Amino acid sequence: MSTMRAAVITAPGGPDVLHIQQRPVPALSGPNHTVRVRVVGSALNRADLIQRAGHYPAPPGVPSDIPGLEFAGEVAALAPGVTRWQIGDRVFGLVPGGAHAEYLTTHEDTLARVPDTLDLHTAGALPEACITAHDALRQARFAPGDRVLVHAVGSGVGLAAVQLVRALGGIPFGTARNAEKLTHATALGLETGFVPDTSADGHPSFADAVLAATDGRGVDIVLDLVGGRYVHEGVRSLAHRGRLVLIGLLAGRESPLDLSRVLARRLQITGTVLRARPLEERIAFTQAFAQEVVPLLADGRVRANIERSFALDEIAEAHALLGSNETTGKLALRIAD
Amino acid sequence: MSTMRAAVITAPGGPDVLHIQQRPVPALSGPNHTVRVRVVGSALNRADLIQRAGHYPAPPGVPSDIPGLEFAGEVAALAPGVTRWQIGDRVFGLVPGGAHAEYLTTHEDTLARVPDTLDLHTAGALPEACITAHDALRQARFAPGDRVLVHAVGSGVGLAAVQLVRALGGIPFGTARNAEKLTHATALGLETGFVPDTSADGHPSFADAVLAATDGRGVDIVLDLVGGRYVHEGVRSLAHRGRLVLIGLLAGRESPLDLSRVLARRLQITGTVLRARPLEERIAFTQAFAQEVVPLLADGRVRANIERSFALDEIAEAHALLGSNETTGKLALRIAD
Repeated sequence: MSTMRAAVITAPGGPDVLHIQQRPVPALSGPNHTVRVRVVGSALNRADLIQRAGHYPAPPGVPSDIPGLEFAGEVAALAPGVTRWQIGDRVFGLVPGGAHAEYLTTHEDTLARVPDTLDLHTAGALPEACITAHDALRQARFAPGDRVLVHAVGSGVGLAAVQLVRALGGIPFGTARNAEKLTHATALGLETGFVPDTSADGHPSFADAVLAATDGRGVDIVLDLVGGRYVHEGVRSLAHRGRLVLIGLLAGRESPLDLSRVLARRLQITGTVLRARPLEERIAFTQAFAQEVVPLLADGRVRANIERSFALDEIAEAHALLGSNETTGKLALRIAD
Repeated sequence: MSTMRAAVITAPGGPDVLHIQQRPVPALSGPNHTVRVRVVGSALNRADLIQRAGHYPAPPGVPSDIPGLEFAGEVAALAPGVTRWQIGDRVFGLVPGGAHAEYLTTHEDTLARVPDTLDLHTAGALPEACITAHDALRQARFAPGDRVLVHAVGSGVGLAAVQLVRALGGIPFGTARNAEKLTHATALGLETGFVPDTSADGHPSFADAVLAATDGRGVDIVLDLVGGRYVHEGVRSLAHRGRLVLIGLLAGRESPLDLSRVLARRLQITGTVLRARPLEERIAFTQAFAQEVVPLLADGRVRANIERSFALDEIAEAHALLGSNETTGKLALRIAD
């Protein structure tokens, strides 16, 4: 059996529990639409850190101790019955784990074709941010003209959301913890950025500023990557029939909810996670990404935002940097040259 | 100009500000799809009390000082261009105000035909409860087999929801403040009823009981007519991808929200009000009611739950009784014999 190099979580803990080890190349098991991909580019996500710390077990069907949720690479082998791809095709997508290794297997319909204009190291840092933002916008029933407030606008998902909203005909607003994090987003099309004020009671305050910037009307959609009291302020920032999609909980696991505003404005709050989705939903969001987002990647209207690129051997260093919360954009991982 | 008898809110205040006065019969203004209805039956709703107290101004286009949101009656006059109805047709529906009078006008598409099996006094107590429950179930994407938890299950909306869920192939659960209020709902098809426990900290507690009654899985939908801390417990009661529709705020205007549960279970919370809807939505919910609910009313699978019936002259007494919060089911109002 041939082997491959993989990042392995050898025990729950800090970045130093990550070691590069030899593992068996994952098998193609029968005529089940499985494709083996030789991974070239990938990137880090917060879920990798949580998994490394032992708090986020991988779902069934993926390696439990190899992190990595996104990838770009080349089709290396096909199970009988696969019709969509040929050996050598350049593909990218999401998996529930196991992408920080030289090979992975996945269902043929969970792959999208990488545009000729993108190299695979860049492409490997795109799927998680773009699909998270795009899927959240779809859940929020985004339509051209919508005003969208994006929290953590300096994060990989935040920067992808700003570009997507602008490219799809919406108006992106955003928050970040400091003015530097707003700079990059502004260059990518952010209409107006806000640094939440915490001077009054320690809680973030931005709703009054958002309302002032939208003629008192508020925004149609909030993409909330932060959670905590941001939800309370986000609800205050929403226009009539506005939608808040909750994607992350960095700022906390609870918020007061102003029910009279939810009722009177007919607001909607939806929680979402990508990783634990069943196969049919993973296929659906990948196909939506292929149809609606990949063309924007091909012509450069939506671009990868890579702060720094690491070799697979440097994965522990990359984990430490992402854990510092001082990054803007993605930390890419080079699995192969 | 001919006149009619109408309940009039003569000043903001208690039930005694309601007087029966003579008012002009509302005009049919041009070829605009307007129908004049001679009202025979109506019923009280909590919004009438709030309007009487001066906290709920009527929207534009309806009398500002005549309460009444639902009615059944006979088509009495047609504007040019109305094709759907003929004089004498028996119709029922919702208006944003003005139903507690002998005549009202409304758009022809906001009326549904009363089944032959129903008298107009019974029919007048059906639209608000049935449409509120049905519209909320539609917003929650109800499907046969769904488990639905209905709060305030002894209220008019609560009892309508229990019958609708059962008639549409779902499994209704419910809460009420005491066991007597559960009795009627149980006779109408309630699977299991719960009286929230407030002994621990004064906050209502029912989620553990709901989970125990659903094999630990939780319910797919919560119809929350109560608000306050019920929302917190409702979120705890929801299954994966569950939906909570917030319809009322009797128990309070704020609740803590467990964001980690909203995220991990991909829950959705939606606020809704019927009264302030634009015409196109009023038409849509009336047509949905006509197609999906009226047949259930015709064959008796969903029935009116009238606790007591009052003559129009007794409207102040009816307001006082509804304000006591001690009613089960609807308080009907006889506008004409």
